[in-house]
Amino acid sequence: MAIQSPSMAAADMQPAPFLAADVGGTHARIGLVSPTGKRTEPVALLRYATYECAQFASLGEILRLFLADHALAPVCCGSIACAGYPEGEQVINSNLPWPVSIPELRAALGVRELALINDFQAMACATEFLGADDTTLIAGPAAVASGPVLVMGPGTGLGAAVRIPTESGRSIILSTEAGQAAFAPSTPRELAVLDRLLRKDAHVPVEQLVSGPGLHTIYRTLGLIEGSPAPLESPARVTDAAIAGTDALARDALDTFCGLLGSVVGDLILLYGAQGGVFMAGGILPQMRDFLQHSSFHARLLSKGPMRSVLAQVPVRLIEHGNLGVIGAASWFLQHRSGVLSVKDRM
Amino acid sequence: MAIQSPSMAAADMQPAPFLAADVGGTHARIGLVSPTGKRTEPVALLRYATYECAQFASLGEILRLFLADHALAPVCCGSIACAGYPEGEQVINSNLPWPVSIPELRAALGVRELALINDFQAMACATEFLGADDTTLIAGPAAVASGPVLVMGPGTGLGAAVRIPTESGRSIILSTEAGQAAFAPSTPRELAVLDRLLRKDAHVPVEQLVSGPGLHTIYRTLGLIEGSPAPLESPARVTDAAIAGTDALARDALDTFCGLLGSVVGDLILLYGAQGGVFMAGGILPQMRDFLQHSSFHARLLSKGPMRSVLAQVPVRLIEHGNLGVIGAASWFLQHRSGVLSVKDRM
Repeated sequence: MAIQSPSMAAADMQPAPFLAADVGGTHARIGLVSPTGKRTEPVALLRYATYECAQFASLGEILRLFLADHALAPVCCGSIACAGYPEGEQVINSNLPWPVSIPELRAALGVRELALINDFQAMACATEFLGADDTTLIAGPAAVASGPVLVMGPGTGLGAAVRIPTESGRSIILSTEAGQAAFAPSTPRELAVLDRLLRKDAHVPVEQLVSGPGLHTIYRTLGLIEGSPAPLESPARVTDAAIAGTDALARDALDTFCGLLGSVVGDLILLYGAQGGVFMAGGILPQMRDFLQHSSFHARLLSKGPMRSVLAQVPVRLIEHGNLGVIGAASWFLQHRSGVLSVKDRM
Repeated sequence: MAIQSPSMAAADMQPAPFLAADVGGTHARIGLVSPTGKRTEPVALLRYATYECAQFASLGEILRLFLADHALAPVCCGSIACAGYPEGEQVINSNLPWPVSIPELRAALGVRELALINDFQAMACATEFLGADDTTLIAGPAAVASGPVLVMGPGTGLGAAVRIPTESGRSIILSTEAGQAAFAPSTPRELAVLDRLLRKDAHVPVEQLVSGPGLHTIYRTLGLIEGSPAPLESPARVTDAAIAGTDALARDALDTFCGLLGSVVGDLILLYGAQGGVFMAGGILPQMRDFLQHSSFHARLLSKGPMRSVLAQVPVRLIEHGNLGVIGAASWFLQHRSGVLSVKDRM
């Protein structure tokens, strides 16, 4: 199905720009976008800015600031892609610094129509418009594959969504809470880490280890298990020290993280039948790209018994998060809410 | 989308009956079916028989026997739903007693068109035609829910598929290899079981524990851990002894199994965003239904941290496997291969 775009009776009747946001635990990426009517590139990004969530009292404050600085005219609608589970018009997410409520945002911004979707649902939507140059092949064959496409990424949490091509030519996006499923260890070291974490909580979700904070949790827990001091204070410092080779515990932690990430990606390919390939996004991966490619990541991805030959055929690519979530949120909105953008609505 | 059915120019021009099979690790269920043209019940089951796989030298032998006993006229096409991963026209599955090759079957049976799908893909397809009377509510609300529907079941292995409703009214079926993903333990006992199993294999898939043979593996492994003799020789005997209360180790094993099953179902709901509910099928569940309902199954399903309130809204139902896979294989075939059943083909 071609993406539904507003009808344009005359060339000068451009559809109104609208708001598209991609809100993660650490960064909020906000765009002012305009429909293009083109299938391969359905939106143009007119303005774009990123904000650190923790520096603002609410998402409303961020959006008001963005609109004040960038909106060319009053904006009547928009789409918010948000980490977490959208339940009705609220979001269930312990990784965000503040609650997100769509009715409150709609009232606060004076925006008539504001849609809420999961951030990886938006990313999955956007992968349809990615060129080969936008990605780095990390593992598997470079050949174009067909079948469901997994988009996942460790950041503040662990998000995942699946784009499922259909016979009609239109893709369906499956939104998931994969990061909340229980963590599966496969080595004595991973068993020891899980054993420690289960002493505090009955449920240890995958994202408790496979995420930015998760890398730090691995580092601290390995320190406890081995009786080593673990002074590094952030996942970025653990990554830097591991790559610089200045800290054995940090290196161990990053090794363990990369192996675990491989195992999780392998599991998700099996769980979603993701023969169409994997796009890995998320704020923490670009920094460790070379380390990841030389780690046990791919060996662990393949280590799934008789499914090895199937998994070996799946291309795994890294994408820079950038404005992809914003493009995805906007594209999703155009596909699902085209009515609100009709020419009549702008008068 | 209405299911495509062969055109019938006159009442006496019935479309030709075709073959539909549902082949699991233990039983092969074979049907001779006829399209009805009705959306709510697209096929009629003319003949049906079940066979124990291990008693035959090949699937071809079973199908030849069935056709000899039940076919009213030569059959020109059919659909095989098969446990395992369909790769091209072969099946990757270590749980079947023999290899399955569609080209070989097509030649051996003289059948022109034979399609291959995953068995749970067929089951998921069939759930669209289930009435409320066909299921037993095990946990969650009785209210009809909307969203993706998970169909999963422990039998010889662990199968799962997801039926995703779309805006067009047509469902998309996502085929999975969920049973091959890594097993996630959540209690000291489950950690100890996994620790034992990882000493033999680098990959312990979920189905190594959550399946019929898996129940027996839990029983034997708990026996090893506790130094208790474990004389019962089959999963059915473990289930019987646990229910009869005659064997503490068997009871422990079945308790552990039910808790694990709950944890896995909870994870799969999160992984698939399966707000539309869960249908549990599989040969071993009906025998333990009452035990399951009074076990830790639902508490473990809900024990997923902040996702508890979301999971509590998901109805979990038990379905008797019966001929559901055959109905599903036939329905899938009608939707995807309607061309081969046109009236012209019968002349």
